[in-house]
Parts: sequence; structure tokens; C-alpha cells
Amino acid sequence: MTSYKITKITNKFSFGNPFNTNAVINNYLNLKKIKKNMPFFEVKNENDTIKLTYKMNNKDKIYGLGEMMGGLNKRGKKYKTYSNDVPIHTPDLENLYGNHPFLIVDGVETFGFFIDFPGKIEFDIGFEKYDTLEIKLKNNFDIYIFEGKKDEIIKEYLKLTGSPMSLPKWAFGYQQSRWSYPDKKSIKEIAKKFREYKIPCDAIYMDIDYMKDYKIFTIDKEKFTNFEKFVNEMKNEGFKLVPIIDPGVKIEKNYEVYEEGIKNNYFCKDEKGNDFTAAVWPGLTHFPDFLNEKVRKWWGDLYKNFNDMGIRAYWNDMNEPAIFYTPERLKEAFEVVKNVKNNDNLGIDVFKAKDSFVNMPNNIKDYKSFYHNVDGENILHDEVHNLYGFNMARATAEGLKRLDNNKRYFLLSRSSYSGQQRFSAIWMGDNMSWWEHMLYHIRMMLNLNITGFFYTGADIGGFGGNTSEDLVIRWMQLGAFTPLFRNHSAFGTRHQEPWEFSEKARNIMKDIIELRYAFIPYSYSEYMMSIEKLKPFISPMFLKYEEERIKEIEDQYMYGESLMIAPIITQNATGRYVHLPENKWLFWNASKYNERKLKVYNPGDYYVKADLFEIPLFIKENSIIVLTKPQNYIGEKEIEKLNVIAFVTEKSEYTYYEDDGETYNYKDGDYAKLKIEIAKDNTEYKIVIEKDESEDYKLKIKELNFEIYDKIGNVFTKKMEI
Amino acid sequence: MTSYKITKITNKFSFGNPFNTNAVINNYLNLKKIKKNMPFFEVKNENDTIKLTYKMNNKDKIYGLGEMMGGLNKRGKKYKTYSNDVPIHTPDLENLYGNHPFLIVDGVETFGFFIDFPGKIEFDIGFEKYDTLEIKLKNNFDIYIFEGKKDEIIKEYLKLTGSPMSLPKWAFGYQQSRWSYPDKKSIKEIAKKFREYKIPCDAIYMDIDYMKDYKIFTIDKEKFTNFEKFVNEMKNEGFKLVPIIDPGVKIEKNYEVYEEGIKNNYFCKDEKGNDFTAAVWPGLTHFPDFLNEKVRKWWGDLYKNFNDMGIRAYWNDMNEPAIFYTPERLKEAFEVVKNVKNNDNLGIDVFKAKDSFVNMPNNIKDYKSFYHNVDGENILHDEVHNLYGFNMARATAEGLKRLDNNKRYFLLSRSSYSGQQRFSAIWMGDNMSWWEHMLYHIRMMLNLNITGFFYTGADIGGFGGNTSEDLVIRWMQLGAFTPLFRNHSAFGTRHQEPWEFSEKARNIMKDIIELRYAFIPYSYSEYMMSIEKLKPFISPMFLKYEEERIKEIEDQYMYGESLMIAPIITQNATGRYVHLPENKWLFWNASKYNERKLKVYNPGDYYVKADLFEIPLFIKENSIIVLTKPQNYIGEKEIEKLNVIAFVTEKSEYTYYEDDGETYNYKDGDYAKLKIEIAKDNTEYKIVIEKDESEDYKLKIKELNFEIYDKIGNVFTKKMEI
Repeated sequence: MTSYKITKITNKFSFGNPFNTNAVINNYLNLKKIKKNMPFFEVKNENDTIKLTYKMNNKDKIYGLGEMMGGLNKRGKKYKTYSNDVPIHTPDLENLYGNHPFLIVDGVETFGFFIDFPGKIEFDIGFEKYDTLEIKLKNNFDIYIFEGKKDEIIKEYLKLTGSPMSLPKWAFGYQQSRWSYPDKKSIKEIAKKFREYKIPCDAIYMDIDYMKDYKIFTIDKEKFTNFEKFVNEMKNEGFKLVPIIDPGVKIEKNYEVYEEGIKNNYFCKDEKGNDFTAAVWPGLTHFPDFLNEKVRKWWGDLYKNFNDMGIRAYWNDMNEPAIFYTPERLKEAFEVVKNVKNNDNLGIDVFKAKDSFVNMPNNIKDYKSFYHNVDGENILHDEVHNLYGFNMARATAEGLKRLDNNKRYFLLSRSSYSGQQRFSAIWMGDNMSWWEHMLYHIRMMLNLNITGFFYTGADIGGFGGNTSEDLVIRWMQLGAFTPLFRNHSAFGTRHQEPWEFSEKARNIMKDIIELRYAFIPYSYSEYMMSIEKLKPFISPMFLKYEEERIKEIEDQYMYGESLMIAPIITQNATGRYVHLPENKWLFWNASKYNERKLKVYNPGDYYVKADLFEIPLFIKENSIIVLTKPQNYIGEKEIEKLNVIAFVTEKSEYTYYEDDGETYNYKDGDYAKLKIEIAKDNTEYKIVIEKDESEDYKLKIKELNFEIYDKIGNVFTKKMEI
Repeated sequence: MTSYKITKITNKFSFGNPFNTNAVINNYLNLKKIKKNMPFFEVKNENDTIKLTYKMNNKDKIYGLGEMMGGLNKRGKKYKTYSNDVPIHTPDLENLYGNHPFLIVDGVETFGFFIDFPGKIEFDIGFEKYDTLEIKLKNNFDIYIFEGKKDEIIKEYLKLTGSPMSLPKWAFGYQQSRWSYPDKKSIKEIAKKFREYKIPCDAIYMDIDYMKDYKIFTIDKEKFTNFEKFVNEMKNEGFKLVPIIDPGVKIEKNYEVYEEGIKNNYFCKDEKGNDFTAAVWPGLTHFPDFLNEKVRKWWGDLYKNFNDMGIRAYWNDMNEPAIFYTPERLKEAFEVVKNVKNNDNLGIDVFKAKDSFVNMPNNIKDYKSFYHNVDGENILHDEVHNLYGFNMARATAEGLKRLDNNKRYFLLSRSSYSGQQRFSAIWMGDNMSWWEHMLYHIRMMLNLNITGFFYTGADIGGFGGNTSEDLVIRWMQLGAFTPLFRNHSAFGTRHQEPWEFSEKARNIMKDIIELRYAFIPYSYSEYMMSIEKLKPFISPMFLKYEEERIKEIEDQYMYGESLMIAPIITQNATGRYVHLPENKWLFWNASKYNERKLKVYNPGDYYVKADLFEIPLFIKENSIIVLTKPQNYIGEKEIEKLNVIAFVTEKSEYTYYEDDGETYNYKDGDYAKLKIEIAKDNTEYKIVIEKDESEDYKLKIKELNFEIYDKIGNVFTKKMEI
């Protein structure tokens, strides 16, 4: 083990010969060795497997691990990092698509650690032994240990692995998806309905069926005649199209992507040096070797056609990489079936035939049978499995930047690794239309924010299975206060667009989406400030309050600095409990964006009513939120008026951030900030406004409409031109 | 449709030519026709499918349906009655093992209904349309409609379908199970540990491996040398053995049960009149035709050997009936695989091969391919599917009664139908070691109590998957306040007996089980009174309190008349919210049975702390519970002393019930009741005791130790010999 000092609170400990994952940004590559034992953990080396052990106190909470099942507090369960394409997210799952081996221990000792290792890491967080955190992995990794307070630990981790990406402002709009809107007609129909019903919407997704025979970077020209014109028409209506891009390249003579890949040896190889073959949607395919820089370059450039048409939004799916089967596994299954068939004395052995098919997809044997070419060296895929999605998204991001250096792009990836927050967002994969999955949505979003993925979300309404009217309404309410607000559902399931239920339901969903759009100035401003400050955009309560009980709250969270969300996530419930810590809170049982009957609550525990059309929001004492009038889509009109909703018992300060929402000019200082200070001044309020603009970017806001609530909920209004 | 009057609040409506399920007891077979339209429902007949539709008000709650997923309130989901052997209880499941088509609509109109139909009934309770309850079934059924208050409706339903069975008193003890303790040695080892650690236990289960080659009614004599002596040894230690009995009879020459069945035509027949063949644990088997009276008689008598050895406790499993596969389905699967194999242009068609194996078990095609002989008539199994488990349990119960008319038996069945509560208890089948399943445990237990299955329970710690120390502790706490208190786990999963975790965990579980045994006088007395009064033993809060909000409480319940249970069912939570309706409550954060630091709470909402070793219990104002000192097993010693814990602000009355706990003599009046009346009398209490005994049964209690709490929690103690 070699020890390095990074900062006052961060040290690095290297075991064996770690693979450079690129999770950590380059600034931290050249470090000074120091003499230091690893703190906190007992280290054991057994046959080149390292075991790290930490004895937990009863009060210790463990947070982090990003996209995983389990609670916000990860105690009492096993986990592993190993990208997993898994269709049914049952509570016992140990791994999903993403890998974010960063954890915070909060208790008797408070510290964080990040294990930079691209293969399988096993975490037993008090499962086998209630008081023991045990980690197992191969003897080739870096572990970074952060000794500080929780918010410092997160900040240091993000300095190390990079600040979360900015996204185009429209990413905070509503997004509609389904597997599939398979042709131009169906997409147009969807778009038309949004505008007809005056339900705001910014993006419509294109799932796998837009392609010709699932060939990546193709468009089925029969389903999409004159595609470029169509993209433009959609753009004029305010809709961004988001095509899906998978990694598997169909094996088909004369298919350009395939031919180029073959010619240049761009695909992963098997043991014998042949192109590795696996079946996914198109049938048999080869997998681009994204760990190879040349391949990334090639792949990124393949986006040119789409980019030239004006498409800057994509989702990279299936990049664990998911495998339906390989010819080898299929052959094995046929063999098993043959043996079962020839068995005269057959009993439960029949299940072996079933198992051979059930265990065929994403089989570990396959992941152990192909190779990457990294700087000329052959690397077994299994050892770097968790970097495949990372590098596919990286190839995409780098390509999109080359194609247009100053226009922000939108990119979701299903698989991910630490550091990926620098260049892609992620969604949480194939959840189900289960009420329980709303709670997992919250828990995962919180742990993903802790681990740097500030912009994320789960499929609203649930991807698999059939949703119900009430589930989709409640989930839309939750989704309206998550970064990615996308309704998505699977092939063969009930449609769940806002108009697919009763008229009443449609109106409720319209109200929710309008509420989301009313919050755009706040959401965007808070997001941009959070990536600047390296503080989670969506924050668990315990990052804001120290009270011991707060650490157990897994179904309330802070949305930005001023707002606490307490969604209803139980079927048939028309109310819920909330814990209001420390200060007073202004309760808004929100339905319509422009109807506010607000009530002040003192700290404590409450049961609050919330009918099916209401979502409980709480504005923090001495805090401010800024709203505007909803539009059909973000950027339809310039936002010139803000509703400033303030809950002021003494004094509140708020900084509103604004930029063009489209370019990286803000990085050169082209943004505006508006500082709003409201102080209680006997029976009046003193309001101070301060503008901070650049030469090239002037604040667009011209008018502020104040709505100031005092400690008993009396409201004071004022209009101010600025 | 023909209408009949049954009582003032109950009417019957017959459609077509209903099959006599025996759900309704004989007293109600001869009824007077009346002229009456069916109330509440709109009735439509489409091609001999009847659709019953009820428009729900937003406030309407729908309770009942017994063993089903979903909430206590069944709104917002689809269900169907069709016995289902399903290993993973995900939230979307529409059917499980049991069928209890009795529902209560509680709202603008309050009424109940029971649909007596042995085949598939589809219930859409506001799923397709949020405000519509729609029921679909074939035009051959009786529907009973109850117009009254909720408790009256339940009582009428139980008068119609029969009072829940009494069980031997030991059924309220702790029961240990696992698939499997496969031999004498392992069972002895388990028994020894209970006694060594002084953890009370009354029963140990024998899962499938005790049999010789899974042949029903055999014992593997190598694993169980001198079985009868062993049963006796176990009995002397206070352990009841509970062997599993499955329906499928192995096809094996010279196996007596098989030969008898063949000889007498006792098995279900296929279309051609041959014995229907399906594979379950023993490999290929035949299914006894339990709908045939002769077969039931034969089957019941097969229990003689076990009964003669002193075994009076059984569980009937796999009686949906579960089918692993039939030769026909297997042949089809092989055919599918062949086609897949011969397909040169293979894509996702491979999944068809998978599906053919995955969909092989419990296939509807099989249920539509065999027949019962009911009074000489051939009845397709599919049409009476839900009666198979009912009649297997009935055969068992009738047999056990013939074998010993006056000794109570213990019988669990996995599959069930309404009315079965008369002669068997049920457990909730193959749940998982998921925290979420604790909530389903509660919800299902409540709806099962509403539908007459007062004695029921889920596998404590979870059957499938691996449990954790904290999950099994929390689940043991819940289980201690459910009728069936059985820890059970599946083959290949982590062991979850109380000593399988840390020493601390073992001690906590010992305390919980002792607490359960301390409550035995209360539990048994309340259970026996509940079946006498036809009032649920385990009661949802809404049966006790009228407040609208109470109807949404799904995680608190009444255990008997005096005690409210609010278990912790969330991982890592050390507290929870409780709603305390109407009256004051005496809070006992219970861990050790003899340590009580009680505190009075006023009505309202509270967050109460409860560490991993504590379970929140609440004694109702002016109510009484009776405890005793735990024993190694029930009946080890005569209970002669009671601790009377009373929370008296004005006056409380309690009736303690006692009988021999073993026979049906109580039905002839051989029981004792002890009426305890405690009235607040200024600073003192007035205690009045009244004994009610029969000539042949005298009250065993000799001493009462009063612990009386007043409205501020001050305690008054008194010892009284009686």
C-alpha cells in the first residue's frame, strides 16, 4: 500500500497496480507519497483479495453508493458494484446499472471514502454481521479517505471526480417517453396533444423502434420520411427529440457502422482475437471497444448526422453492456435441454432447462470472455466491466463537444461510474409501476446526489407493469420535484401519458406540470448554483440539520436551498406525516401554481392532509423561492417577471442565477445574479435588490412580484420594477 | 337471477346454476324466494359473462378479499380469485393461494358482498377507471349482499360461512420451521437449542424431506429411525411435530397410497379418462380428487398412522394444486426449443424458449385439462379450481375428527376458499425476506381477519431470500402479535433461527418470544372470545373507531380488544409515527415481558422511539390485559397467577376466558370465565371479581396481581387470591 496526501482532509491509499479509470480528474494524478497508515479500516489480504473492515457503532449511519436498492441509510444489506441490466428491481437486488463506490460513515466517527476500482466490489454493510462493514475486492485499487464533515466530504469527493455537468435549461422541463412512439405519426400525435391540452412539454423520446432493424445511427426511412424536416417542425413547436443510442452494432454486410468497425478493429475481441459476438435488440452484434480512445473518437463522430439536424439530446441505453445471449450460452442451453429430454427419470431437473435460459442474459461467463484494447494492452472485460457505460457516454459527450463546442447537450446514460457526472446524467433504469418504487426513487435520488449525480430521475409512473391513475398522479407530483421529470413506460404496458386516464386526472397532471414550469426559475437557478458550490441540488435532510432523528428521514428532502418536499407515496393515502426540523415552515399544499393558501407550522411532527391533487411543499423560514408563469416549453418566451415567494420572520437572502441556458458562456462569466434581501422591519419589510451582470449577459428579469409571509402567515405583496 | 331473503340485512341473488362450494353452511341452503332487484350493482350479461359494476365515491374504501397483495384498502388495483402458487410476491400480483371473495364497501353507501363461485372472478377495484368497481365472472354464482354496519356485515358473513375453528392452545406458542430440518438429528438439535437457551417453543415443522422420495404419508426410515419413539420424546420436551402433507401422489408401483388410488379411481382424470399426470416434488404424480366425497374419506383416514403416534398438527402445502410441469407442457417446450435451434436468423426469439420453460409451472392449459368426479358428474378442474385446497384441508380435518372426535387439531393450509375457516387455518405462503413484506403481512392479516381467517400469519423473517439480523428481529416483534407465530425459511437461504445471529440478537429474540408467552392468557382468551362473538381477533383500527382518518391506517392494528400494536417495519428506523384515536393510551415500549415503564398518551399523532429491541404497544383507556410468566412451552405448568395490567381512568371491565385448551368440551359449556371490573374510586380502585365455571371445568387461576395505571401513569398494585 502506498499513501498519498491530497488535501488537508483527503488522503489516497493505493493497493497493487490500479487501473486508471478516469473517475478522478487529471489534476490529482501526480501526488506526493507520505507515510500514513490507512485510518478506520482493518486491512487483510487473502490470496490477493483485500478485505477492508470497519466496526460500526449502533448509531452509525452509512450513506452513499449512488444507484442502489436499499435505504438512504445503506445499513443492513449487501451490495456490489457490477453494472447490471435487471428488469425487476426487487428489494434484495445487490446491484443495478450504476457504480458509485463512494460512502459516508456518519456516527461516532464521521468520514467518507471512495474506492476507485472498475470491477466488482462487494459491500456487506452490517448484513452478515450487524455491526460490521466489510468490503472485498481485488488487490488493485485506490481508496480515497475523506476526514471532515459530511458536506466537506461531498465537496472534496466532487473536487476529486469533477463537478456535475450543466445541462440545457430545457432539461428542467417535462419530458415524455414511451417504448415506443415508433414513427413520425405517433410522435406528432403526442406533440399535438400536449399543445392542444396546453400541457407544457419540452422533449419527446425516441425508443429503439425509430431505427432500421435496430441498427445504431440509422433511421427507418419508411416510418420517418423526411426526418430532418420533421426534427425542425418539432423544434419549432418547442419539442426536443431524444433518440436512444445502444452500443451493440448489428452484424450486417454493407451496414456502414459495422463495416467501419470491422475494418478498423473497433470491436471488443474474444479469447481468440475474433470480434466478440453477442445478441441484443438487432440480433447478433459486436460491441465497440469504448475503452479504446480511437474507438471513442470514431463513435463520437457518428453523432454528426443527428447533430447536423439539430439534435443535441440522447440517451445511451444497454451500456452495461446488456447481453441477451451469446452463441456459446445458447449452445450450452440446448445441451442442457437435450440432457433433460433424454432423462427417463425426470423430476425437478426440468428446472435446469429453465435456469439455462433464465440465466442466459448478462451472464458472467460472457463478461469473462471478451477483451478491451487499452493503450495496446488486452484487458479482460470483467475486470473493467463498470467502465463500459462510462466510456460510451464519454465517447458521446466528447463527440458532441467536438461537433459543437459551445452548445450544451443533453445526455442520459443507463450505466455509469463515478466521475461520469462530469459529462452525462443518468436515469435509474427499468423500474416498475409499483408504489414502493416511489420511495426507492427518492432514496436513490438522494444517494445519487451525494455521489455527484445531481441531475437524475426514475421513470415517472413506472416503466414495467401497468400503472393506475392514482399512481401516475402521485408519481408526477414527486417527479415535478426531481431533476429529470420524465414519464416513461414499457412496451405492452398501459399507456401513461397525461390524457390516458380520466379528464379529471388529465387536469390534475396539467396542474402538476404547470407547477413544475412555474418553478423553472428556482429549479434552474438552484441547479446551476449547486454545481458551482458542489453541494447536492437534491439534499437529504441530514445535510441541512444536525438533529439525530433527521438521519432517519428517507421520504422528505430539500429541493434546492429553500424548499422541502414531502410527497405522498402510499396508495389511497390522503395525508402523511412530516417532520419539520428546527425552524418554522410555510406549508403549501400545492395543486395549481397560482393558488396558494399558505400556512405557517412550528417545528415538530405533523400529519398533513393532501388530497390526490395536492402535494405538500414546505418553504423554510427566512427563505425565498422564485416562480414564473408556465409556458408551453422552456424558452418559448423570455422570462421577465418573477413571483418572489418569501417566508420572512427576520431576514432572508436569496441569490437568483440566470444565464442563456444553452451555451457554456457562463463559464466565462456571462451570467447574471440577482441578490434579493428581505428584512422584517417592524410591520413593514425592507427589500434590497442587487444585480450582478456581465458585459455580454444582462439580467432578463424586469419585474418582481413579492409575496412575503410573516410568522403567522399574513401576506404582504409588492410589485417592483428593476 | 333469483332473489332470496336470509336475514334482515342479508339477501342472496343466484345467477345461472351455481355449483355448491360448501362455503356456506347447510343451514342456509333452503331459502325463500323473494322479489327483489339486486341493490348497488349494475348487472350486465355479455355472452354468459356477468359484469357487476358499482360507481365508487372518492371517499369509498373497499376492504376484504382476504389473502391478496395490495393495501388494506383494496382500491386502485386488479385482483382475481384463482389459487396461485407464486414464489415472488411482487406488489402487482393479482392472486395468491387463497380465495376469499368477500368485500366491504365503506363510504357513501356501506354494504358487504360475498360471491360464492369456485372459479376465476376478476375484480377491478378502480384500476382501469378510478371511480369504478367492476367484477367479471361466469353466469353461475351466488352473490350475498349484506346491508348493515361493518361489524354486522362481518358477523353475518361468518354466520353464513361458519365460525372460525378453535385450535389447541399451544397454537399460540412460538413455532420453528425451515425447509428443512431433514432428519431426526437436526430436529433434535433444534429442540435442544431452544431448551438450552431457555427460548420458549411449542412446535417444530417437518418440511418435505422427512418423506421417503417425497411420497406422501411415508417417513424416510433411514433419517428417522424409530420415529414413533422420537415423536414421543419430542412430546415430552413440549414440542409438537408438524409434518407437511402435499396432494401429489407419486406414481410408483407398490407404493400403497398410489396403488389404492389407482385401484379405486381416486385420482383426477384427463380428457380421455386416464389418471391426470403432473410433476411436483416426487416427480410424476397423480392428484387425488378431493372434490369426491369417497376420496376425502380415504385421504382423511390416511392420517391414522401419524395420529396414532400422537401427531395432531399438519400443514397442507402445494394444494392450489401447484404443478411444476406436465408431460404435455414439457413436450411443447421441447418443440419450441427445436424451432429456436433451427432458426438461422435468430434474434429475440430466443426468449420464446425461455418463456416456454418459465410459463410451464401452474399453467392454465393444465388446469383446463383435468376433471373431478362430483356426485358422478365430470367437472372441469378450471371451473372449480379454488376448491381444491379447500377440499384437501376438509378431507384432512374430517379425517382427524373421525380419528379423534374430541381432540383439537392444528391444521394450516396454503390454498383456501371462503368457509375454510371452519376447519383449517392458513398461512400466507412463500413471502420473501423483504422489509416491504412486513407491511403486506399486516395488511393481509387484517383482510384475512375480516374474511373470517382469524388465525393466520406469514413466515416470520421471510421465506425466500436471505434475512438480516435486524429484519428477523423486527419481524419477530410483529410476529409475536400475530396469531400464527412461525419463523420459516427456504432451502438454500440463510438460517434464521433465533441463535443464528449475534448473541445480542439471540437475547432480543428470547425476550420477544418470552413476551409472546407472557401474553398467552390474553391471546388465547381473546381468540376464543372472538370466535364466539364472530368479531375479528386481529382488527383494523376502522372497526373500532369511526374517525375518517382511521380508515387509512394500515400499519397499526388491534390485537384483541385492549391492545394496539404499532410495529417498526422500516429498516434502520428507531421510531415511528402512531395515530392514537379518541381515548387515552398507555404506551408500553415493550422488550422484556417483566419490565414495564409505561406512559400515558392523549389522543393525537406522535412519533415514538423504539430501538431495535423494542416494540411499541398501546393499552387502550379503561382496558385490561392479562399476562403470566413465560414457560418453555404452553401447558408445561398450570397457569395459576395472572398479572392484570389495567389502564383505568374511570372504569374497565374485562372477561378472561379459560378452558382445557385441548378438547371441544368448551362447546358443552366446560370453560371458565373470570370477569374483572376495576373502577376508579377517588384515589383508590374498586375491584370486583366474578367467576363463571362449569361443573367439570374450574378456573385454574388462583392469584391476581393487579397493576393499575391512572390517567397520568401512576401505578397502583395489589395482590388478590381468588
